[in-house]
Amino acid sequence: MKRVKLTVAYDGTHYHGWQIQPEGDTIEAELNRHLSELLKEEIHVTGASRTDAGVHALGNVAVFNTQARMPVDKIAIAMNTRLPSDIRIQKSEQVPETFHPRFCRVRKTYRYQIWNRPVQNPLVSRYSTFYYYPLDAEKMDKAAHYLLGRHDFSSFCTAMPDRPNHVRTIEEISVRREGDMITLQITGDGFLYNMVRIIAGTLLRVGGGQMKPEEMKTVLEAKDRSLAGDTARPEGLTLMGIEYLDDKQRG
Amino acid sequence: MKRVKLTVAYDGTHYHGWQIQPEGDTIEAELNRHLSELLKEEIHVTGASRTDAGVHALGNVAVFNTQARMPVDKIAIAMNTRLPSDIRIQKSEQVPETFHPRFCRVRKTYRYQIWNRPVQNPLVSRYSTFYYYPLDAEKMDKAAHYLLGRHDFSSFCTAMPDRPNHVRTIEEISVRREGDMITLQITGDGFLYNMVRIIAGTLLRVGGGQMKPEEMKTVLEAKDRSLAGDTARPEGLTLMGIEYLDDKQRG
Repeated sequence: MKRVKLTVAYDGTHYHGWQIQPEGDTIEAELNRHLSELLKEEIHVTGASRTDAGVHALGNVAVFNTQARMPVDKIAIAMNTRLPSDIRIQKSEQVPETFHPRFCRVRKTYRYQIWNRPVQNPLVSRYSTFYYYPLDAEKMDKAAHYLLGRHDFSSFCTAMPDRPNHVRTIEEISVRREGDMITLQITGDGFLYNMVRIIAGTLLRVGGGQMKPEEMKTVLEAKDRSLAGDTARPEGLTLMGIEYLDDKQRG
Repeated sequence: MKRVKLTVAYDGTHYHGWQIQPEGDTIEAELNRHLSELLKEEIHVTGASRTDAGVHALGNVAVFNTQARMPVDKIAIAMNTRLPSDIRIQKSEQVPETFHPRFCRVRKTYRYQIWNRPVQNPLVSRYSTFYYYPLDAEKMDKAAHYLLGRHDFSSFCTAMPDRPNHVRTIEEISVRREGDMITLQITGDGFLYNMVRIIAGTLLRVGGGQMKPEEMKTVLEAKDRSLAGDTARPEGLTLMGIEYLDDKQRG
């Protein structure tokens, strides 16, 4: 038995997210179907991040066990000839049997892109959120920095009854403007449900002048979701990558 | 009567190019249809560049005459609520009655993007050409510089019987690598049919080592299409913009 880790990139535009749903295509279902056909045994992957409908990834992670003899590094190549063009396995590698993509120390990086101009650009609209009114990216960057470090992020998540612990650590966060594109990049040890999109939605308020950068601290400390901004649209969000930190859990 | 210039951006993935065809959607047909509906008169636009199927644009130009009273700058806004999401008018402005988008001095800029990595990336695949084998971007840049200036570009065009003049001036050209993306950017006073894609295809040969940078000069001077590389795929090509140089023709 071999345990295999896949690094998966996808354009989430046409998917109902990662996790298998009763209806609609999902990344998990595509992987299970094509892996099962390729390896001629029933495969059920375990994903690292269950991204939502419309969210993209450059480096999500899926793990599965197989009895197949195919060399592990060839699985990526063989899968890429079968998968739809909006999903591509970047790498397939063997990992220890104890490796679990969710229950180990990680560093995850997300990017949230905002196209800030009075007119939409069809060449970036799949991977960014369109925002008509001018935004001050420097103020957004200043506000974002109040989130650095270890905090209870209850203000910035959609509550899930089975996951009461809202303490996470943000290691790096920045907001930069390049021309008409504003990019929020955020790295941390884990993210709560909708956390990056709620942070983005709150930063949009700061950028538009409805909220002062310093108020980010107040919102964080209140642990009250109603004080933060809206959950920003999914198309701007991309899971850039997941780094596994414990040696024995590394791919 | 007013003469109106539109600056048009589009994702060409699902179009049969700019020019109206007996079958299949085209950018020109979409503009004519929605302009005619909006302005309640029959409109036929004249385009600056008849981009091919699958080619994109950030700043192509279309011109038309209208009797409508709608303020010219509002036409862009009104059109963007009607057009499919992969076409967006960036600007609408009044121009002199003598303005013709093709018969005046211009500076056009094209970009050709190549994703150079053994695995495709679904987040860039709509706007770049995938190239598996390693490419040397510095050699490509060196080769590209032999094309600078005023030359007969017969080696780099698909012949069109009605357009015998193959002399054009390339004012700027560069090939740069940023991570796995290689970008050819080229500015000139006009481009022959398939010219940028044939230049890109020839540079791919140089980058892959099948041709030396210096041989670019030989190919150029031979005025023989058969010595240049293949016409590179359309999805990597984007018409970035068209600058009109004569004052009285400017928008």
